[in-house]
Amino acid sequence: MLKALFIDLSGVLYVGNKVIPGAVAAVAKARAKQLQLRFVTNTSRRTRTQILMDLKNLGFELAEEELFTAPIAAHAWLQEKQLRPYCLIHQNIKSEFSDLIQTNPNAVIIGDAEQDFCYDKLNRAFQLCQQGAPLLGIGCNRFFKLDEQLLLDAGPFIKAIEFAASTQAIILGKPSRDFFLQALASTNLQADQVLMIGDDIYGDVEGAINAGLHGCLVRTGKYQQGDENKISLPHQSADSIVEAVDYALLNYRNS
Amino acid sequence: MLKALFIDLSGVLYVGNKVIPGAVAAVAKARAKQLQLRFVTNTSRRTRTQILMDLKNLGFELAEEELFTAPIAAHAWLQEKQLRPYCLIHQNIKSEFSDLIQTNPNAVIIGDAEQDFCYDKLNRAFQLCQQGAPLLGIGCNRFFKLDEQLLLDAGPFIKAIEFAASTQAIILGKPSRDFFLQALASTNLQADQVLMIGDDIYGDVEGAINAGLHGCLVRTGKYQQGDENKISLPHQSADSIVEAVDYALLNYRNS
Repeated sequence: MLKALFIDLSGVLYVGNKVIPGAVAAVAKARAKQLQLRFVTNTSRRTRTQILMDLKNLGFELAEEELFTAPIAAHAWLQEKQLRPYCLIHQNIKSEFSDLIQTNPNAVIIGDAEQDFCYDKLNRAFQLCQQGAPLLGIGCNRFFKLDEQLLLDAGPFIKAIEFAASTQAIILGKPSRDFFLQALASTNLQADQVLMIGDDIYGDVEGAINAGLHGCLVRTGKYQQGDENKISLPHQSADSIVEAVDYALLNYRNS
Repeated sequence: MLKALFIDLSGVLYVGNKVIPGAVAAVAKARAKQLQLRFVTNTSRRTRTQILMDLKNLGFELAEEELFTAPIAAHAWLQEKQLRPYCLIHQNIKSEFSDLIQTNPNAVIIGDAEQDFCYDKLNRAFQLCQQGAPLLGIGCNRFFKLDEQLLLDAGPFIKAIEFAASTQAIILGKPSRDFFLQALASTNLQADQVLMIGDDIYGDVEGAINAGLHGCLVRTGKYQQGDENKISLPHQSADSIVEAVDYALLNYRNS
């Protein structure tokens, strides 16, 4: 029986700055029925505080501990292992890691660091990994679009360091199993008690199912016709989060 | 029957600035017996002229067209296809490409570009490849040692662009089959008429054999005991280039 919903943000709750019709009420309804909620996103350029503020402005009120982003997951991972990160990440989220000791680093995090991706800093990341520091990736996307230009995302630089140091990165962000399991650990539930709702058939739905969760694809956001058929794993689909929440409540028992 | 020798430079003819005993005479002997000679190296920081000068200073006189380096191979490849390269290569060898038109580029070459590996230039390389420009690599090494520091070589950046643009690089440099075949094309011989002599069991010997040539490992330079057994492909081995040339001459017939 489902006891929690993991909900993607962009494309599921809103598109751009426009709320998906019924999304605010659907989230409120799930909450009223005591489904646990987690909001899971790969965003690597907004702090937790900024995201909570953005959501509030759109009408979604959520608790800080309900928000699960790839940088937060990386932070939790580092903190748990008491590691000192060398951070190649976006300026906007450096504050998220400022509570961790960063002198004499023994771990490397790569996010979309933009101009920080330079030869000297990449060498430093490589040298640390070569000496055995674990490599964390905040997502592993290939590129993103900004002002009509395609720009390199974190993925290619993670691949570069992996190759150079003959290592394998731990990717924190969808569709990584580690990421879903870490979000799961913040609930007290089993994987099969959770439904992930997202608009990305691979990142959200397939990733969740590979981690043992259930998955529901919504036909909003980046959804394109036929996406349901792109994976053979059994999953749900719904016109929007409104229908997805109704499905979850039909399969919910507060035992 | 062998009709040509492909000879690696460092570790086969010399180590540092010290000539391998008998190497000058061995090369002269092969030449006198009319074996065709090609000198093949991956070096990506010395121009053809600089390498020829270095060799001359050590006592080796060779014709410009006998020298085959990864940058020269990349140049020939671009010229043959009449492509305009975007060059992310070492400062020292930029002059090697200055005869090619580089405005409005439609190909990308990546060598060990050091500080030129920055976000803006890597984005430019990626964008071109994303639009269909072929990606050439001058070797694909992971890292090199300089002043006791390990530094990123071209390989990791080639992997980064390959991943970002979902493309596959053509590697010009040993052990790439393309590279050996291009050097072969400069002779008028069949692959099995050529013996590659090198101190790197993978880069020189295995690479050559995979391209259809014969391979001979010399026990000088970077050779380490047991290297002969690291590949199962049949190959020769010799104490040094002196013995390797003798072997070749026993198997030579000027028909």
